[in-house]
Amino acid sequence: MAQDGKKLVSEITSMDEDFTQWYTDVVTKAGLISYSNIKGFMVIKPAGYAIWELIQKHLDERFKKTGVTNAYLPMLIPESLLQKEKDHVEGFAPEVAWVTHGGTEPLTERYCVRPTSETLFCDYYKGEIHSYKDLPQVLNQWCSVVRWEKETRPFLRSREFLWQEGHTAHATFEEAEERTQQMLNVYADFLAEDMAIPVIKGQKTEKEKFAGAEATYTVEALMHDGRALQSATSHNFGDGFAKAFEIQYAGKDNKLHHVFQTSWGATTRLIGAMIMVHGDNSGLVLPPRIAPVQVMIVPIQQKKEGVLETAGKMLEALKDFRAKLDDSDRSPGYKFADQEMRGIPLRIEIGPKDIEAGKCVIVRRDTREKIECAIDEVAAKVGELLPKIQQDMYDRAKNHLDTHTFAATTKEEFEEAFKETKGFVKAMWCGDRACEDKIKEDYSVTSRCIPFEQENLSGTCVCCGKPATKMVYWGRAY
Amino acid sequence: MAQDGKKLVSEITSMDEDFTQWYTDVVTKAGLISYSNIKGFMVIKPAGYAIWELIQKHLDERFKKTGVTNAYLPMLIPESLLQKEKDHVEGFAPEVAWVTHGGTEPLTERYCVRPTSETLFCDYYKGEIHSYKDLPQVLNQWCSVVRWEKETRPFLRSREFLWQEGHTAHATFEEAEERTQQMLNVYADFLAEDMAIPVIKGQKTEKEKFAGAEATYTVEALMHDGRALQSATSHNFGDGFAKAFEIQYAGKDNKLHHVFQTSWGATTRLIGAMIMVHGDNSGLVLPPRIAPVQVMIVPIQQKKEGVLETAGKMLEALKDFRAKLDDSDRSPGYKFADQEMRGIPLRIEIGPKDIEAGKCVIVRRDTREKIECAIDEVAAKVGELLPKIQQDMYDRAKNHLDTHTFAATTKEEFEEAFKETKGFVKAMWCGDRACEDKIKEDYSVTSRCIPFEQENLSGTCVCCGKPATKMVYWGRAY
Repeated sequence: MAQDGKKLVSEITSMDEDFTQWYTDVVTKAGLISYSNIKGFMVIKPAGYAIWELIQKHLDERFKKTGVTNAYLPMLIPESLLQKEKDHVEGFAPEVAWVTHGGTEPLTERYCVRPTSETLFCDYYKGEIHSYKDLPQVLNQWCSVVRWEKETRPFLRSREFLWQEGHTAHATFEEAEERTQQMLNVYADFLAEDMAIPVIKGQKTEKEKFAGAEATYTVEALMHDGRALQSATSHNFGDGFAKAFEIQYAGKDNKLHHVFQTSWGATTRLIGAMIMVHGDNSGLVLPPRIAPVQVMIVPIQQKKEGVLETAGKMLEALKDFRAKLDDSDRSPGYKFADQEMRGIPLRIEIGPKDIEAGKCVIVRRDTREKIECAIDEVAAKVGELLPKIQQDMYDRAKNHLDTHTFAATTKEEFEEAFKETKGFVKAMWCGDRACEDKIKEDYSVTSRCIPFEQENLSGTCVCCGKPATKMVYWGRAY
Repeated sequence: MAQDGKKLVSEITSMDEDFTQWYTDVVTKAGLISYSNIKGFMVIKPAGYAIWELIQKHLDERFKKTGVTNAYLPMLIPESLLQKEKDHVEGFAPEVAWVTHGGTEPLTERYCVRPTSETLFCDYYKGEIHSYKDLPQVLNQWCSVVRWEKETRPFLRSREFLWQEGHTAHATFEEAEERTQQMLNVYADFLAEDMAIPVIKGQKTEKEKFAGAEATYTVEALMHDGRALQSATSHNFGDGFAKAFEIQYAGKDNKLHHVFQTSWGATTRLIGAMIMVHGDNSGLVLPPRIAPVQVMIVPIQQKKEGVLETAGKMLEALKDFRAKLDDSDRSPGYKFADQEMRGIPLRIEIGPKDIEAGKCVIVRRDTREKIECAIDEVAAKVGELLPKIQQDMYDRAKNHLDTHTFAATTKEEFEEAFKETKGFVKAMWCGDRACEDKIKEDYSVTSRCIPFEQENLSGTCVCCGKPATKMVYWGRAY
């Protein structure tokens, strides 16, 4: 590796030394973001946005297969509308951005930039839903939202972020519950299959649920440093919002009924999850299915006769993949380090000697394995390697999750497990908010979820020792 | 047609009677939008948003073919940043929405919701561009923007709208000019080929150009009522913004140079253009390439044995198209009228008698022509009809444009031409702002553009009679 390549990599802090700084180095040096003039508002640069475009593509396809259609609702919410549902306004009002002037005129009522759009969808559905024939309504929107967070970090917690928010209305509670769970499974499958990230599926406690929801479900992922990241959520609102907004339909029985609602969302935070699950000390490692560039061809001694020509033909042969050729005038060493930083799954090295021998070298980003391949078999080999990398990345992440999930049956074991942040700790809980609060205060950890897959670790709560029937995943969270 | 179908159509005002009301009726009855609580902020409903998704898909593909990549910049702009370019702030400050509070705290500086993002891109490029190797920068973003307009109409002039805004930086003025023209051509081709809308390409006058631009180019379309609609614009900024924001690069000569910039945009207004170019008294008429549903199969007497089965097989045979089957329990008459309202290019009617005879009836939305077709030849016939409809729609719009463009060589002819709003009027202009202002005041028309295709209609300005070398398109605009 040439000197300039070494320099590029040496600019990243080692993740073992300082994981937080490693993360910041990666998001900036890999060209994913740059900071703007306003705290918590970031520029998502082309390399970062291209990942988001692929996340959108895969998620949107999965949504549409379940009957979701997209729409677009306003960016601003009148204060009076935000206030209609009591829990919701309490949850969001302290962290919204307020618009007070339109042009040179003060507004008669303040509008907030949407932090989420439940109130807007409710107002819209009130006008759209009259009869059982108008149900279900299954809409989604892709947009940006603003929440005035105090502490901010690129992708993980920003004042503005991009997301999708689905909002549905149904005739019965059961239908709403079914949709809530269906969308949680869409997220879990997407995370596993497209992002190579295994998750724990479960329900949030009353303390941690969404403002205004009857039940919040979550998919929780484990980062490389042992911290948990809530990766997507799906909420069943029951008929609470419908009652606050008076959304009623005439049933087959000719009587008026309130609808039952859900909402579900995933954000640019997924990019943060991907960085912290798969990245290493050389930078990003992108799962092939969401890698904007899957294969980069790097010609060696590219000025020698025939090298660029052969590389160009290879690019043509790889047209079914997201392949590129780096024929810039930078050194191969720089290119190698740069592409490793950017997480490109496969690199193909091809120089005069390779061409003479009719072969090239394919290098995997995830394992650094070098694979010799005949030039005319490159497309077949790439077609075989990309899904293998995707699977291997998932398997490694799953192994990390499994080996960093611990069980605690006593307070001592629980305390011991959280002396360092190593991963999830499973423990029994009595169900009391007081114990949940105490655990948070004593160990700075939060209940991540009550997993759907319950185990009976012991009969008693790790906090108070009283009888317990629920097993909870605890963790230090982003 | 059944009674309920008649009723649906009778709800639309005739376009000859009241074009404005016809437009409002169509956007609401065809389910494209609904109004929100805030004036000028609309809900884009699924039927409207699906059209926008197809516009995005086609435009984005065309952009990417020219080397554009997407990014995302913040939604908010600090007041101090907006003020950096004098003309720009004068143009936009009076019509922006101001955020003054984040959560419960007043901000130390006001932020405006972006009305356009020149200042943000300049601030970003200042940090990214150092050497000639960093050029060109060719970015685009898809987002929503807010401009506090006084008069609002769905899609045509709304306080919030969706759009794309491309922003580029180049080493030379010539390169910037080339990109400006290239993107104008992308818009013109997209409008002609995907939206079936012919346009006049030209340059805006000094009076009408974008705030801060050196030159603004435009594609102007003619609506059914004879009014003009600016459908997309492309701006060459020269180095004006670069000087205000100090964006400099070290050239091959090792000296510092200011970059040259462009921007170009198209908005949800394109949906308004499409409605007003192609619509008729039964509602929308969608060009096949941007029709979310291209073919709707309507079973007749669908409860009779074999009807739904045959219709279902036909849907399967049409899988290469955006086809749907309307098996709802509404009457065929209602379905016909509803689909006409929604502008679906082709309807296929299939009932027991048709099935017995092995045929079906295909009905074109644009001409209402009924075409008998063998059931097993439906896919081939649809594949032949959709591009034909697309072309016919373009040809009719082109014919309308040509027959509604008039030439005036004297003040009297000019006045006569604008007694009613019939279309564009071409006339010679001396180039003086005073004449442009006078024409606007006297006839309530504006200069649409100085077209690239110039004609020498006469030697003198229609307003002042002085020597003139420029031919201008004038029109009443939306």
